[in-house]
Amino acid sequence: MTRGNVMVGQSGGPTSVINASLVGVFKTAKDEGCKTVYGMRNGIEGLLEERYIDISDYIKNDLDIELLKRTPSSFLGTCRFKLPKAEKAPELYERIFEILNKLEVKYFFYIGGNDSMDTIMQLSEFARKIDSDIRFMGVPKTIDNDLACTDHTPGFGSAAKYIASTMKEIIRDAKTYPNDSVTIVEIMGRNAGWLTASSALSRSEDCDGPDLIYLPEVVFDHNKFLEQIKEKKKTQKAVIVAVSEGIKTADGKYVCEANKNTTLVDSFGHKALGGTALYLSDYLTDELGIKCRGIVLATLQRCASHLVSRRDITEAFMAGADAVQAALRGETGKMIIFKRLSNNPYSIITDVMDIREIANKEKCVPLEWITEGGTYVSDEFDTYARPLIIGELSPFMVDGLPRHLFIDK
Amino acid sequence: MTRGNVMVGQSGGPTSVINASLVGVFKTAKDEGCKTVYGMRNGIEGLLEERYIDISDYIKNDLDIELLKRTPSSFLGTCRFKLPKAEKAPELYERIFEILNKLEVKYFFYIGGNDSMDTIMQLSEFARKIDSDIRFMGVPKTIDNDLACTDHTPGFGSAAKYIASTMKEIIRDAKTYPNDSVTIVEIMGRNAGWLTASSALSRSEDCDGPDLIYLPEVVFDHNKFLEQIKEKKKTQKAVIVAVSEGIKTADGKYVCEANKNTTLVDSFGHKALGGTALYLSDYLTDELGIKCRGIVLATLQRCASHLVSRRDITEAFMAGADAVQAALRGETGKMIIFKRLSNNPYSIITDVMDIREIANKEKCVPLEWITEGGTYVSDEFDTYARPLIIGELSPFMVDGLPRHLFIDK
Repeated sequence: MTRGNVMVGQSGGPTSVINASLVGVFKTAKDEGCKTVYGMRNGIEGLLEERYIDISDYIKNDLDIELLKRTPSSFLGTCRFKLPKAEKAPELYERIFEILNKLEVKYFFYIGGNDSMDTIMQLSEFARKIDSDIRFMGVPKTIDNDLACTDHTPGFGSAAKYIASTMKEIIRDAKTYPNDSVTIVEIMGRNAGWLTASSALSRSEDCDGPDLIYLPEVVFDHNKFLEQIKEKKKTQKAVIVAVSEGIKTADGKYVCEANKNTTLVDSFGHKALGGTALYLSDYLTDELGIKCRGIVLATLQRCASHLVSRRDITEAFMAGADAVQAALRGETGKMIIFKRLSNNPYSIITDVMDIREIANKEKCVPLEWITEGGTYVSDEFDTYARPLIIGELSPFMVDGLPRHLFIDK
Repeated sequence: MTRGNVMVGQSGGPTSVINASLVGVFKTAKDEGCKTVYGMRNGIEGLLEERYIDISDYIKNDLDIELLKRTPSSFLGTCRFKLPKAEKAPELYERIFEILNKLEVKYFFYIGGNDSMDTIMQLSEFARKIDSDIRFMGVPKTIDNDLACTDHTPGFGSAAKYIASTMKEIIRDAKTYPNDSVTIVEIMGRNAGWLTASSALSRSEDCDGPDLIYLPEVVFDHNKFLEQIKEKKKTQKAVIVAVSEGIKTADGKYVCEANKNTTLVDSFGHKALGGTALYLSDYLTDELGIKCRGIVLATLQRCASHLVSRRDITEAFMAGADAVQAALRGETGKMIIFKRLSNNPYSIITDVMDIREIANKEKCVPLEWITEGGTYVSDEFDTYARPLIIGELSPFMVDGLPRHLFIDK
């Protein structure tokens, strides 16, 4: 059976498993008889410039598929392009549909986070208006795990595994010195603390985990912070703290804004964060006079494909594959979600959800999971997150380094 | 055959393979008939407080040995204690020999870098003076690769592998955006640029490597730097730069000192570095008005035991094992060195070298290996360093995370 063509894109910040979703879309579409699977370069921004590839030119065999699963960052290139509403820029929409029609595209997939789901929402609504039969499906992707309606998002498990593993190594490193010290590890997360909370997964038989965890869900108070550090220092030499880059004081200001003159803002209106750990490290050095070190995990959290969660890879593929199946069934304007059936044994199924329930919304860590006066997370968090970091996928090592599949070097 | 007891310690900054050397000392000493292998907690500083363990209480079987090889940071704890010269503090030396004699220690091993080798030098000279038959051997250890007389040091290969792998992932991440950007990756290295140079190993069939590399061996010039970035920007959107934390301007000042009021100094007189990438990132943002990001690999370079070089692990073990064999032969006041016999196939042997040739000296990257006006390294560097990152040692994963052996959690 021959079907229409497919257009797939990747948008927003990359993850270690975003290419597994791309592979899921590609392989399933081909298996189901779609003729050409196009990949837009740099998301909708590149599509508008008619920059796209035929993915078959790059994935030629099963080895390429496995290699792409092990390749970090967005294979097709990404963008941070905010598609204006159709009534404000109808020419953009007309242009997109013109290109899609020319290429005989019937199925459109966008792998992204909540901002990208807005694009799927706008395009599917426009399709309805102009009576186009092109189907638009969202494939969830974000290390931040902040998408509404889904148990979790592909990308989160691998980032959590990287953060917890690295945190174990950092803790072991920090505690080997006999001197007084505070190590502050800055973890991504603008408003949702899922990633920072994941540092608690390092708590295991061979590691006490970080001593204090500060999430953006809780108002940050400098005095309380200082008292909490002092309290820990009473019984231990080295104190290790996990902080979210997005922690804010009671006035709503990001802590990292305190020592900056200017703050960059991206096209979605998000402020560029960063500097929280260094700021707090300087603050503690001033207040306590002991050695403090700030460590920023930075983009490594989202691109360390050498240390992914096998379960996350499998689920990311599944999200892409099931988005194709849903589109072939006739679904549009929806996103694939995960529903958890059980924790022990861990079991999930996918479903589809109206994109309007998801786009532009954020899911935060439940306040009842935040314990110890806002400085730790509960066992419920562990039960929720632990299954997502299980299993490994060995990188393909060539000349001592992980090998990647690429379009441009 | 029963021999005297052994005392072993770890000193200075940890590495991912420092425990493989400890295992090499322990296993060889036991195999050769030494009765008790004591481990000093926190190096010579802990020994002076009579803090030590019987390592057999922690390594009970071959699984423990394999687990310890996969454990980052110094298992025994480390210190940054500078042993004063014997004429200035004879009581410290008398105390150390009193403790060693009480424990019937005949062989003393110190796993460390150039500062730690000074300790071996002082102790072996004191032993000669008081006619003690205790033998003192140094086991090389430093990610910095800056020890004299040895082809390379255990710890460097794994740090280089981590840096090159991470650099590949960072480059892929940075280049996925269609926007103009400069990413500055800060790598450890006070005066020697070996680690920063290792970022060039990321250059391979699937990766162009960093665009510019700045080593501490070359005087840093702000204007040249700006011109070099502008030149790269002419032909590419995303520019990726590797900088050593230790780069200095013509007046001998560290670049990272430019935006600091105070600089901490440790007991060896080393200034605390850090902040170079952020400073340069801010500088470029001001000058060019484009998005610049600083990424600091920080202590992850020395503790990421989940991504070690198998060859480095093997050689670190061998350095410990051969130090024991040398001490049993009667050597003292020496350090194990590596001599490279050939690159293809890669082959080394160990030898011993008088510690006075090594202590307190630093080996830098040869200037003839630094190319492109001080912004890259030559093929000779690749030929030298590539063999050292070959091979992997899979971590033992438990509940999704690498498992470690520990004394204190």
